[in-house]
Amino acid sequence: MAPLPSLPKFLFPNPLPRTDFTLHNLPFGVFSRTGSSMPRPTIGVAIGDKILDMRVMAEKNLVPPYFADFYLNPFMMAGRQAWSEVRERLQQYLSDSHPSSLSHRPDVVKEAIVEQKDVTMHLPAVIGDYTDFYASKEHATNVGSIWRSKENPLLPNWVHLPVGYHGRASTIIPSGQPVIRPCGQMLPKDADKPVFGPSKVLDFELEMASFVGGEFVAGDPVPLDQARDKIFGLVLMNDWTARDIQKWEYQPLGPFLGKSFATAISPWVVTLDALEPFRCTAPEQDPEPLPHLRHRGVDFPSYDIKLEVAVKLEADHSPETICRTNLRYMYWTIFQQLTHHASNGCLMRAGDLLGTGTISGKEKSSFGSLLELTWAGSEPLRFSNGQERKFLEDGDEVVMTGYAEKGPIRVGFGECRNVVQPSRVRGEPVV
Amino acid sequence: MAPLPSLPKFLFPNPLPRTDFTLHNLPFGVFSRTGSSMPRPTIGVAIGDKILDMRVMAEKNLVPPYFADFYLNPFMMAGRQAWSEVRERLQQYLSDSHPSSLSHRPDVVKEAIVEQKDVTMHLPAVIGDYTDFYASKEHATNVGSIWRSKENPLLPNWVHLPVGYHGRASTIIPSGQPVIRPCGQMLPKDADKPVFGPSKVLDFELEMASFVGGEFVAGDPVPLDQARDKIFGLVLMNDWTARDIQKWEYQPLGPFLGKSFATAISPWVVTLDALEPFRCTAPEQDPEPLPHLRHRGVDFPSYDIKLEVAVKLEADHSPETICRTNLRYMYWTIFQQLTHHASNGCLMRAGDLLGTGTISGKEKSSFGSLLELTWAGSEPLRFSNGQERKFLEDGDEVVMTGYAEKGPIRVGFGECRNVVQPSRVRGEPVV
Ligand SMILES: [Ca+2]
Ligand SMILES: [Ca+2]
Ligand SMILES: [Mg+2]
Ligand SMILES: [Mg+2]
Ligand code: NI
Repeated sequence: MAPLPSLPKFLFPNPLPRTDFTLHNLPFGVFSRTGSSMPRPTIGVAIGDKILDMRVMAEKNLVPPYFADFYLNPFMMAGRQAWSEVRERLQQYLSDSHPSSLSHRPDVVKEAIVEQKDVTMHLPAVIGDYTDFYASKEHATNVGSIWRSKENPLLPNWVHLPVGYHGRASTIIPSGQPVIRPCGQMLPKDADKPVFGPSKVLDFELEMASFVGGEFVAGDPVPLDQARDKIFGLVLMNDWTARDIQKWEYQPLGPFLGKSFATAISPWVVTLDALEPFRCTAPEQDPEPLPHLRHRGVDFPSYDIKLEVAVKLEADHSPETICRTNLRYMYWTIFQQLTHHASNGCLMRAGDLLGTGTISGKEKSSFGSLLELTWAGSEPLRFSNGQERKFLEDGDEVVMTGYAEKGPIRVGFGECRNVVQPSRVRGEPVV
Repeated sequence: MAPLPSLPKFLFPNPLPRTDFTLHNLPFGVFSRTGSSMPRPTIGVAIGDKILDMRVMAEKNLVPPYFADFYLNPFMMAGRQAWSEVRERLQQYLSDSHPSSLSHRPDVVKEAIVEQKDVTMHLPAVIGDYTDFYASKEHATNVGSIWRSKENPLLPNWVHLPVGYHGRASTIIPSGQPVIRPCGQMLPKDADKPVFGPSKVLDFELEMASFVGGEFVAGDPVPLDQARDKIFGLVLMNDWTARDIQKWEYQPLGPFLGKSFATAISPWVVTLDALEPFRCTAPEQDPEPLPHLRHRGVDFPSYDIKLEVAVKLEADHSPETICRTNLRYMYWTIFQQLTHHASNGCLMRAGDLLGTGTISGKEKSSFGSLLELTWAGSEPLRFSNGQERKFLEDGDEVVMTGYAEKGPIRVGFGECRNVVQPSRVRGEPVV
């Protein structure tokens, strides 16, 4: 087969300058037509600055009927073979030369091709359970140093298992939705009693997240060599965090209200098939994990995905990059995370979301949260317009992006972007 | 109005010896007919040892159409006024004397009345998110003394907020379903490296749990004086726990795989309306909570519900009671739990489940877990047949029951009962 071009000519007679959503990518998402009188969630596939409407494709029997569903769960449940078959058919439909190419079907193109600028993106799936891990050694070391002990920043269990916690599924939001600054209890410096009010220490956490897929049996583990077949794809994730609420509440049972007000994800799920060319090594694991968590004979259990965080301070400010990192820095792989999660027999369900945890690298410029970038506020970031930030202020917009690139092949994630809105307090006075 | 009898004579010409499911109760659940060729979840109301099939009632336009749904979520979302109206109509349908009494409708009785012995019970709702609190001061003090420090068993935040954590929704199971002993990582005594295998320290936690109801707006808190309108009802809950897995994994991010293998609930949701006669005081709170968590002018923010745990050791052993406690011992009320949960703007959804945390009293015989009852295994329980238990063994069955009683009025929860099955390990060897 000839190498795939970035985009088909029949849909893009004038090439786009650069796009995350090439023929190599074909990520899945859920959209509705903006301003429609009866908007309904519709599965789509991103191609360049357009979307292929999969409900139309299903109605024409060009793809399986579950693409007429509102969300991706049935497709996610269909399993790896279905995922690969659909991918192959879509590459044929969207090629210029294949006999099945939609270039021969202007009727279908007319009905099924939508401009991304004309839609609103939704969550891609109904998320039954959401879990967040803590799998970057640099991040865990930084947080441990800041909050617990410089000498022993990592607790003893950290190197033996991917530490994780259950998160709140009801407040997972898509890119584009504003984040309201949360209220909560916090302990002011040197006080002996907490106060209640809007968080003063609002932060982001740069993460990626896996959408789980396939079928599962309650009580059965997911052996590590089968974990790749049970992850449908990846998104960018911003695990919004109120550090002051978190710090006061998190012992002994872990993160709760400091996190549960919002967790944002990018709307397009990039499949593991699309990421196959970008597989890479993971950091060496020492001590060696227990057998069920050991990648045996797998040289490339991670993915080389470049990640960035930019912050836009006001309307006429263009987002300024404050962090550059990479998924490959993460100590525990996404497969080890899933295998650990199911190792007690915990039932996974297609559409479950597993956050990687904040992805920090060794360099300060690669730290994935303001807690680390400003070292708990002691080293404010300075922006080109002269403004400084220790943590996020109302009106700040956080923009996360990510992509993988190899020669002419680019597979990107689009963006996860949310603006901070002032606290909304009703009834009860704030303090 | 004349006082309600326990049960209507037209359905129970011969009085039952004693029942949890009186006319005062009328709890809601979801069942299917056992052995049916096409079993489908059906909403029902328990009355004595029978069930009123609410799909039949909906099809005959005797109750709102959402009772033809598979689960209680639409009814839970309908809100307090709908809950009370339906309760009143059901009491009329099931009375002997009211003009609407089903005693005049033998056709309906024939179709809509089912024997409990002929059904399988399911979860009552699709549970979007499950949260577990840690709201009994005696329990938190016991666990803190055993695992952290006898001198300072409670962390400083405990008296200021109901500590809680997100739990796993996918593994909530109904009473009757067996619990498979989970595998996991644990650190053997005096070892410096963990091992992987079946948990050796399997425990129960006696809890109750609230089903949230009504409508919610993301970002809005639930003021404490409105919290009662946002809780549909209560069930018994067994928060199954593997102490060895929990102890090794829980720092710093809280309980995860030590809990996520199973959480069991009793199938019948007892409404707050049914529990109204049993309202009672809660323990005095010192220090006084912050204003948004303060019960102002509410003398009876808790419920007097007697709770018991019995264990059945083998087939011919009748369950032996090992714990007697009461919901009223709990320091943080179910309303404070909900208000705290939503105080950061976290979206609640009808059908969400909030566990109270283990309910322990002051007396040793009222401790709600084996961790406390045997003081981490140092004081084994002795059963009448001579057997001892530090923790649960394969084949043990844990039976939780609960009821409220006042004069002739009894409102009970039925039971939450699960047997322990041996670990099921596939593929990977255990150690
Ligand atoms: Ca995180
Ligand atoms: Ca518990
Ligand atoms: Mg979050
Ligand atoms: Mg549990
Ligand atoms: Ni009367």
